[in-house]
Amino acid sequence: MSRFLSPTLAAVTPYTPGEQPQDQQYIKLNTNESPYLPSPAVIAAVSEHEVEKLRLYSDPACADLLKAAAAHFGLQPEQIMPGNGSDENLFFALRAFCDADHPLAYADITYGCYGVWCGLMHIPSRIIPLKEDFTLDPKDYYGLNQTIVLANPNAPTGIALPRAEIEGILKANPNNVVIVDEAYVDFGGESCVPLIDQYENLLVVQTFSKSRQLAGARLGLAMGNAKLIADLNRVKFSLNPYNINRLTLKAGQAALEDTAYFDRTRAAIVDTRAWTKQQLEQRGFAVLDSRSNFLFASTNRKDGKTLYKELKENGILVRHFDAPRIQNWLRITIGTSEQMKIFVNTLDKIMEE
Amino acid sequence: MSRFLSPTLAAVTPYTPGEQPQDQQYIKLNTNESPYLPSPAVIAAVSEHEVEKLRLYSDPACADLLKAAAAHFGLQPEQIMPGNGSDENLFFALRAFCDADHPLAYADITYGCYGVWCGLMHIPSRIIPLKEDFTLDPKDYYGLNQTIVLANPNAPTGIALPRAEIEGILKANPNNVVIVDEAYVDFGGESCVPLIDQYENLLVVQTFSKSRQLAGARLGLAMGNAKLIADLNRVKFSLNPYNINRLTLKAGQAALEDTAYFDRTRAAIVDTRAWTKQQLEQRGFAVLDSRSNFLFASTNRKDGKTLYKELKENGILVRHFDAPRIQNWLRITIGTSEQMKIFVNTLDKIMEE
Repeated sequence: MSRFLSPTLAAVTPYTPGEQPQDQQYIKLNTNESPYLPSPAVIAAVSEHEVEKLRLYSDPACADLLKAAAAHFGLQPEQIMPGNGSDENLFFALRAFCDADHPLAYADITYGCYGVWCGLMHIPSRIIPLKEDFTLDPKDYYGLNQTIVLANPNAPTGIALPRAEIEGILKANPNNVVIVDEAYVDFGGESCVPLIDQYENLLVVQTFSKSRQLAGARLGLAMGNAKLIADLNRVKFSLNPYNINRLTLKAGQAALEDTAYFDRTRAAIVDTRAWTKQQLEQRGFAVLDSRSNFLFASTNRKDGKTLYKELKENGILVRHFDAPRIQNWLRITIGTSEQMKIFVNTLDKIMEE
Repeated sequence: MSRFLSPTLAAVTPYTPGEQPQDQQYIKLNTNESPYLPSPAVIAAVSEHEVEKLRLYSDPACADLLKAAAAHFGLQPEQIMPGNGSDENLFFALRAFCDADHPLAYADITYGCYGVWCGLMHIPSRIIPLKEDFTLDPKDYYGLNQTIVLANPNAPTGIALPRAEIEGILKANPNNVVIVDEAYVDFGGESCVPLIDQYENLLVVQTFSKSRQLAGARLGLAMGNAKLIADLNRVKFSLNPYNINRLTLKAGQAALEDTAYFDRTRAAIVDTRAWTKQQLEQRGFAVLDSRSNFLFASTNRKDGKTLYKELKENGILVRHFDAPRIQNWLRITIGTSEQMKIFVNTLDKIMEE
């Protein structure tokens, strides 16, 4: 820390992303990436001709991408704003809809960045514990008079709330924005996008990092009432109008248009998840009911940190969080069925030792 | 504006980027892009194989790019942080080094985003007028006890301060960070990078958008004392750890390594700028002494806004700022020599009418 750092920044604890070893020698089941390549349409869209056009700024209005997204989700372009990853959209939303007088309410066990952003922007946090079984009681969020963010399905648990229960939270907080972070919704959750025209306080955030194989392109979509989206654009155009690069705009558009590939790959993840869950349960693991592209699992035969380390020593990366209530759990990204077979075999080897 | 927008945001006036007509039918001399394609090494680096790897997150440490940048600039990797465009780095720097008690000092005529970011983050602005001839008096910045940002060369004037004069400002403000925004330095300015090891309060910001033909890739570098860079990383990892996409990391590295192409293209811009300046002066225009990839020019035969409009009607986009002191001036990006011949011919046609 330099002696010039603003005191207001010194207290912030930055987020620690999952390991990204660059040697690529691990089976990487630790950051919820897709094990499948991007759609062939994406590969074709990022053509040499488009690379040549990098000399020109990207379209700050992102018009072509918005048109494709609007068609895909059944919305108007002005109900959507793309961001440089879902993280940027969520940060913009907190900047727009929270301040010292508008705290942010979120679960004790959820995506770690919510708390970090509150720290960075001096937004008070209202942390609401999940129940003992890691499910969320929607009534805990009724009438809060605070901005709310819900990861649905939640991370790192994978547990999903039905749309009707989120609708209850929306109705019970008509004067506050409810942000639904649907990073993992495409693997079996119920999206709240169909509620956008009914609830002016609903903001849905999705990402291209998981179900659209574009983690490295950095692209997310915020979707909601046109006025909410105008607010987010106000932040974007005050901060970084050209926030999304040209190639990502092209890749994202192509990914949205190839719905067959999208459906095929997410169905494959759901199948492999079911097989992996069964294998873990047969071995006595507790495994939560995941609607995401990962499983959250624990065993009383070995503590979570040890198991994480032993898997890593055997060439498999999973994610362990050194946090209250979940120290004994591991978050395991669903890879290809071949990768998950290796994972299960490795687990057997470790557990027998 | 929605009824949910934080009152603290409602007062912000977003930045208006230069027009980016997507039909591509204009000769675009309005946003200081390069008229040349990216280096062939960049085209090769963004290979199909790299596009396939978009399924994986980018390296949050940006290790390969930092290694190439460190070699290029004669720095250590820990003295450099890449950002999603120079705008993001500048925003991070203001977040780290300014607050209600640490105002930001900058010129009345300079890059428009500085003031917008101050509004967004409630940082008081100390605006210091340039002299009548649009030059900057370094003594105006001595002993300010405020964070300082200097665009050098300045925009939209193109006028550069010698390195020794910035050194005077650094010495006169030992307890405050001096940010030197060198977006345009590669076209004839003196970079402050060689001062980094001597001044712990110096932060230099450069971009790949102008002299490296990568405006659409979004990449900038912040360079300074390792502790200042650690502060900026603190902001990055608290906001968007994966802020730079994989393809831009590859493109940026290739652009840095192809120094021959870099030198050839910036020399071409400098030559074309000299020719264009001469042509304008022969026609009675006042033209400032630019060390950038644009010229700032005016004539008393036609007001700036009219001339901008008539050029646009004739297929040429230049930038006009409807701001005090510079309403009568146009900022003209240097294109290829062919484009500048068309520009001059079009100007002759308009001025004769």
